[in-house]
Amino acid sequence: MTWSASVLTLFPEMFPGPLGHSLAGRALREGRWALDAIDIRGFATDRHRSVDDTPCGGGTGMVLRPDVVDAALGAALAEGPVRPAVVLTPRGVPLDQAMVREFSAGPGLVLLCGRFEGIDQRVIDSRGLREVSIGDYVLSGGEPAALVLLDACVRLLPGVMGAAASGEEESFSAGPNGGLLEYPHYTRPAVWNGLPVPPVLLSGNHAEVARWRREQAETLTRTRRPDLWARLQGTQPIAAPLDGQASAA
Amino acid sequence: MTWSASVLTLFPEMFPGPLGHSLAGRALREGRWALDAIDIRGFATDRHRSVDDTPCGGGTGMVLRPDVVDAALGAALAEGPVRPAVVLTPRGVPLDQAMVREFSAGPGLVLLCGRFEGIDQRVIDSRGLREVSIGDYVLSGGEPAALVLLDACVRLLPGVMGAAASGEEESFSAGPNGGLLEYPHYTRPAVWNGLPVPPVLLSGNHAEVARWRREQAETLTRTRRPDLWARLQGTQPIAAPLDGQASAA
Repeated sequence: MTWSASVLTLFPEMFPGPLGHSLAGRALREGRWALDAIDIRGFATDRHRSVDDTPCGGGTGMVLRPDVVDAALGAALAEGPVRPAVVLTPRGVPLDQAMVREFSAGPGLVLLCGRFEGIDQRVIDSRGLREVSIGDYVLSGGEPAALVLLDACVRLLPGVMGAAASGEEESFSAGPNGGLLEYPHYTRPAVWNGLPVPPVLLSGNHAEVARWRREQAETLTRTRRPDLWARLQGTQPIAAPLDGQASAA
Repeated sequence: MTWSASVLTLFPEMFPGPLGHSLAGRALREGRWALDAIDIRGFATDRHRSVDDTPCGGGTGMVLRPDVVDAALGAALAEGPVRPAVVLTPRGVPLDQAMVREFSAGPGLVLLCGRFEGIDQRVIDSRGLREVSIGDYVLSGGEPAALVLLDACVRLLPGVMGAAASGEEESFSAGPNGGLLEYPHYTRPAVWNGLPVPPVLLSGNHAEVARWRREQAETLTRTRRPDLWARLQGTQPIAAPLDGQASAA
């Protein structure tokens, strides 16, 4: 069964957008995943095709109507397998790599993109939509967030990344890097602009390379992301013995 | 001076992508901001136009070469006014609305998008690039993150949002909502699918509406985002007296 995404939006022309290129685009053309952008406006029932109205209780902006959004969700959910339904909103649970892995391992996603001020909460509650946020900032709508979530999921689908292993050694993976921020990377030339590559990386000593990378990742995480560092310390031993496998090339 | 973004990427065809539509697209056509997508491959110096090489110390994936990236950065920075230069990476400082506001108030941005395993750290360090992350998940490259950062900045530029005020009352703003997650929204019909709009919102009592929304926002933030709640409690009084202005319509 193909991993399949349906996106409910007032701007279907934004899709596939960047997902039509590079890894995700090639995978889309190869049929490794499917994307259906559904225009919410097609589910308006009045002759003005209106999809929004003023917020109850006053305030600026407009709110997407529950009946219109519900009809669009119903149509999307009726297609294909039972898929998790997500609304992208800064009120949501923060997206993390564990959630990406969960969505990627499932049959696909139905994504609802808000615009204007927001979406009537009754349709979010009655449909049991998962409210997900990609970060603590405000976008013009849910569409850029949907593109991000889809990109993160698609790259984990079977056959999408050229080297399957390259997904494993990155920031936030449960792999050898252990949920830490990633260590710094270096490549040729060995000296550039007067700046040498750290000598240990050219030493050929795999255990030393692994140790150095681990130290770099730990220091970076501790100083730049004390929140992440504290969470990791609560859940797993940070200073576990190195086994040298982190440098498996 | 027009707010101006230069994006360094191996996939310039991904831009403007979704930013060519809706609010950001109209603003782009109206000249309220400018976007220049620069192909990093154009700065390769060998006859194979190679931009990357294997990581020093071993490991999967490829690393963007410092000399090629530096030449591309030099060309972008030489154009127009002095602009902050940012590399989008999960190792970065987390993007938040305060950073968006800072970037939006400046002359524009130079954004470097990585692909493959990463970018040689020497060019990041010697150019003093700000490493920024849009969230704790891994993307196929920096491009979707650049689109998100630009969308967040552009909507705050003068004249981009129809109702200027509608940017003020949202999650993470320093406005009346006080950095809390946003309260739920409701619109017509007053009863939908057997579900009524909360009666207080139809009461016409502005002070009561403001109080209810504040309580909803506080409860949601406390339960869904204890991290954000703790940060807010450390920096400002959460239970400040309501002055009714949160419902100014």
